[in-house]
This record gives sequence, structure tokens and C-alpha cells, in this order.
Amino acid sequence: MSSTNKPMDLLNQSREKRVLIRLRGNRRMRGILKSYDIHLNLTLTDAEEIGDEGSNKLGEVIVRGDNVIMVSPPPQ
Amino acid sequence: MSSTNKPMDLLNQSREKRVLIRLRGNRRMRGILKSYDIHLNLTLTDAEEIGDEGSNKLGEVIVRGDNVIMVSPPPQ
Amino acid sequence: MSSTNKPMDLLNQSREKRVLIRLRGNRRMRGILKSYDIHLNLTLTDAEEIGDEGSNKLGEVIVRGDNVIMVSPPPQ
Amino acid sequence: MSSTNKPMDLLNQSREKRVLIRLRGNRRMRGILKSYDIHLNLTLTDAEEIGDEGSNKLGEVIVRGDNVIMVSPPPQ
Amino acid sequence: MSSTNKPMDLLNQSREKRVLIRLRGNRRMRGILKSYDIHLNLTLTDAEEIGDEGSNKLGEVIVRGDNVIMVSPPPQ
Amino acid sequence: MSSTNKPMDLLNQSREKRVLIRLRGNRRMRGILKSYDIHLNLTLTDAEEIGDEGSNKLGEVIVRGDNVIMVSPPPQ
Amino acid sequence: MSSTNKPMDLLNQSREKRVLIRLRGNRRMRGILKSYDIHLNLTLTDAEEIGDEGSNKLGEVIVRGDNVIMVSPPPQ
Repeated sequence: MSSTNKPMDLLNQSREKRVLIRLRGNRRMRGILKSYDIHLNLTLTDAEEIGDEGSNKLGEVIVRGDNVIMVSPPPQ
Repeated sequence: MSSTNKPMDLLNQSREKRVLIRLRGNRRMRGILKSYDIHLNLTLTDAEEIGDEGSNKLGEVIVRGDNVIMVSPPPQ
Repeated sequence: MSSTNKPMDLLNQSREKRVLIRLRGNRRMRGILKSYDIHLNLTLTDAEEIGDEGSNKLGEVIVRGDNVIMVSPPPQ
Repeated sequence: MSSTNKPMDLLNQSREKRVLIRLRGNRRMRGILKSYDIHLNLTLTDAEEIGDEGSNKLGEVIVRGDNVIMVSPPPQ
Repeated sequence: MSSTNKPMDLLNQSREKRVLIRLRGNRRMRGILKSYDIHLNLTLTDAEEIGDEGSNKLGEVIVRGDNVIMVSPPPQ
Repeated sequence: MSSTNKPMDLLNQSREKRVLIRLRGNRRMRGILKSYDIHLNLTLTDAEEIGDEGSNKLGEVIVRGDNVIMVSPPPQ
Repeated sequence: MSSTNKPMDLLNQSREKRVLIRLRGNRRMRGILKSYDIHLNLTLTDAEEIGDEGSNKLGEVIVRGDNVIMVSPPPQ
């Protein structure tokens, strides 16, 4: 059984872990989730944009939540 | 007669079941619904993106509700 | 004279009836309206997507209201 | 001088009258305005979609307000 | 010096005057401003749509504010 | 050190000055900022649209804030 | 361990530093972050737009938050 009761709980469990993020406009990013809020505003460290021709280092980044389509924590 | 009185009740009945989700931008996903909130933010496990050339495993995922067009529970 | 005073009243009168729904992105659906809320989130049973080359069975479905353009109840 | 003080007053004066509606995505509709609310959600009877190659009968319809660009009451 | 302190004051000064309106989707309109509210919902009389090949009479019209890009009062 | 503490303070310091505005849909405008509110609704006088083939006089104008991408005050 | 608890904290730590901003519509900007609010409205000084063919000086600028996709502080 799951102990997750609300979508935000999954984000809470993913703090300090490397997550995959899909953004509107066909962007994808990867990075270590440091913080989030209820709008799905996110901060990541060691972030990189993932494109068809490789990835682009971004370092630390704040992402505005309304661009987020989905967030995947790493497989456990 | 239906005992469903509000749209969210159908989501509640679909917890722990495999649902089909259509997202804006012609994306489709399938996965086991673990949690949701009133914005239709969703978490899924065993999730996969379904495309024209097969599906793509995502594992656990949180979907931001404003990308959701519709959610279908499995046939009973 | 009409006894309908607010747009939501028409939805209320359409419960348990087969409605036609137009969605953004040129989608059309048909199904039996089971529930709705003030955002026009809807649940349907026996739902089908209607396309140019025929229809696609969806069964039970929850539709997020902000994708809805219009809803037509059946002719009386 | 006008006795109309707020935009919604014009809608109120147009109840039970045939109005022309322009929607996003280049759609146009005509029908008898039965009800409205502050979001510009509307219900119409005897509604029809107006296209370049003629019109398409819709009967009774509820239109979600955020698709509405403008509403014109009939000339007096 | 200007005595206008808030954007809505300029609309108030433009009541009963012919204004030019730019809407999303490259639409332009002209008409006499009769009323407005804080969402920039507007009503116009003697309104016309202005296109590249001439103008199109609309008479009285209510415009939903979130389609408005800008409103210009007539030169004084 | 900066004495600006909130983004709106910069708008306040720009009143009665000529600002450059970028709008969605690749529009640019210039004019003297007369008023603003927290939604970034703006009024300008002596406004002009700036296009690739020259500029287009608009005179006085109210701009709906949700079309604004950025506002630049003049260099000091 | 991170002492950042909310996404806005990272913006707070980036004040007076040169940040990289990605905006909708494929725009990128760089500038010194002077202020921000919870909507991600930002003010920058010494700002420049970064395009494929070089950069374009903007000086001081206020950016409306709903155009922001992400903000990166400089590497530490």
C-alpha cells in the first residue's frame, strides 16, 4: 500500500534526489530537487537541460511551476 | 443510479487502479493512480508514456493538473 | 419562459442524459453526464471520442473543465 | 445617455434575444441567450455554429466563458 | 501634470467616446465605450471590426476583457 | 546598494518617463508611463508601436498587463 | 545539506548577482537581479537579451513573472 496521500507528498520524498522534469515546449531537465512549493515552483542543483543533441549544464536553477508538465523521481 | 456526485469522486474510486490520461500537446500516459488533488495534480506509479511508436517507461511520476485533458479509469 | 437562471442549471438538467462536448484542440466527445462542478469538470459514462474517421470508446471518463468549449444536452 | 453601467448589464438586457457570439479559434455561434454568469458562461437555445460553408444546428448549449471573445445583441 | 492615478481612470475618462481596441489574434475594433469593469470587460455601441479589407459593423457588443491587448481613447 | 525592494518600485520611479515595453506576439511600444497597477496594467501617453518598418502613433493608451513581457525605463 | 527551504529563497540569495533567465517564446536574458516578488516578477539592472546573433543591451528592466520559465544564479 502507498503512504502517499497527496501529490505534493511525492515531491517531498524526492528532495535531495535526482529528478527528471518535463516542461512545456518540449523541454526536459534533470537535477537534484532542493525545494518546491504548491505551485510546483522548483529549485534544482546540478541541473542540466536534456536535448536531442546532448545536455546543457545549468547548475542551480529555479523553475516556475506553471511550465512543468511532470516530475519523475528516480527509480527506487 | 449513480452514487457519484462530484467529478472528484470518480478519481477517488480510481485510486490504486490503472488509469489512462490524456494531456495537452497530444500526450497520453497510463499508470496506477496513487493520489490526486482538486487541481487534478496526480501521482502515478508504474507510469508509461504512450506514443505512436510504442511506450516509454516513466516509473513514478507527478503530473501537474493543468496539463490534464481527461482521465479514464479502467473498465469495470 | 425559461426557468433556467444560471448556466450551471442547464448542466443539472442534463444529468443522466447523453451530451455532446466540444473540447479545445478540435476534440469532440459524447457520453452520459454523471456529475459536474462549477469549473465545468465533468464525468461521463459510456463516453466516446468522435473523430473524422469514426469514434473511439472511452468508457468512464473525467474531463478537466478548462478544456471544455461547450456542452450540448440532447434535443428534448 | 446610456443607462448601462457595467458590461454584464448588456447581457442582462439581451436575455431571451438572439445574440451573435465570437469564440476563440475562429468559431462563431448564434442563439437565444437564456442565462449567463460573471465568467461569461452562457446558455443558448436554438443555437447554431456559423461557418464559412453554412451553419450547423446545436440546439441547446452551454458555452464556457473563457472561450468567448465577444457577444453582440441584435440591432434594436 | 496628469491627474490619472490608475489605469482604470483613463477608461473612465473615455466613456461615451470612440475608442480603438486591439485584441489578441490580430483583431482591431472601434466603437463608443459605454461601460467597463476591472477585468477590462467592455461594452461598445456603434462598434465595428477593422480588417485589412475594410470594416464590419457589429452594432452593440460586449468584449471579454482577457482578449484585450490595448485600448486607445481618441486624440483630445 | 539598491533602494528598490519590489519590482513595482521600479515602475513607480519610471512614472512620467519614456519607457520601452515588449508585449507578447512580438509587439514593442514606447511611451510616457502615466499609471500602472499590480497586474502591470499600464497607461501611456505619446505612445507609439515600434515595428520593423517604422513606428505607428497611438497617442494615449491603456495596456492590459497580461500582455506585457517587460518594461524598460530610460537609461539614467 | 541545503539550507534552501522554498524556491523563493534561492532568488533571495541571488539578489545583486548576475542571473540567467529563460522566458517563453525562446527568449533569454542576463542581468543583475535587484528585486523579485512571489509571482516571479523581477527587476534587473545591466540587463541584456541574448540571441543567436549576439546580445542586445536593455539596461534596467522589469520582467512580468508569468513569462519566466527558469532563473539560474551564477555558479558559486
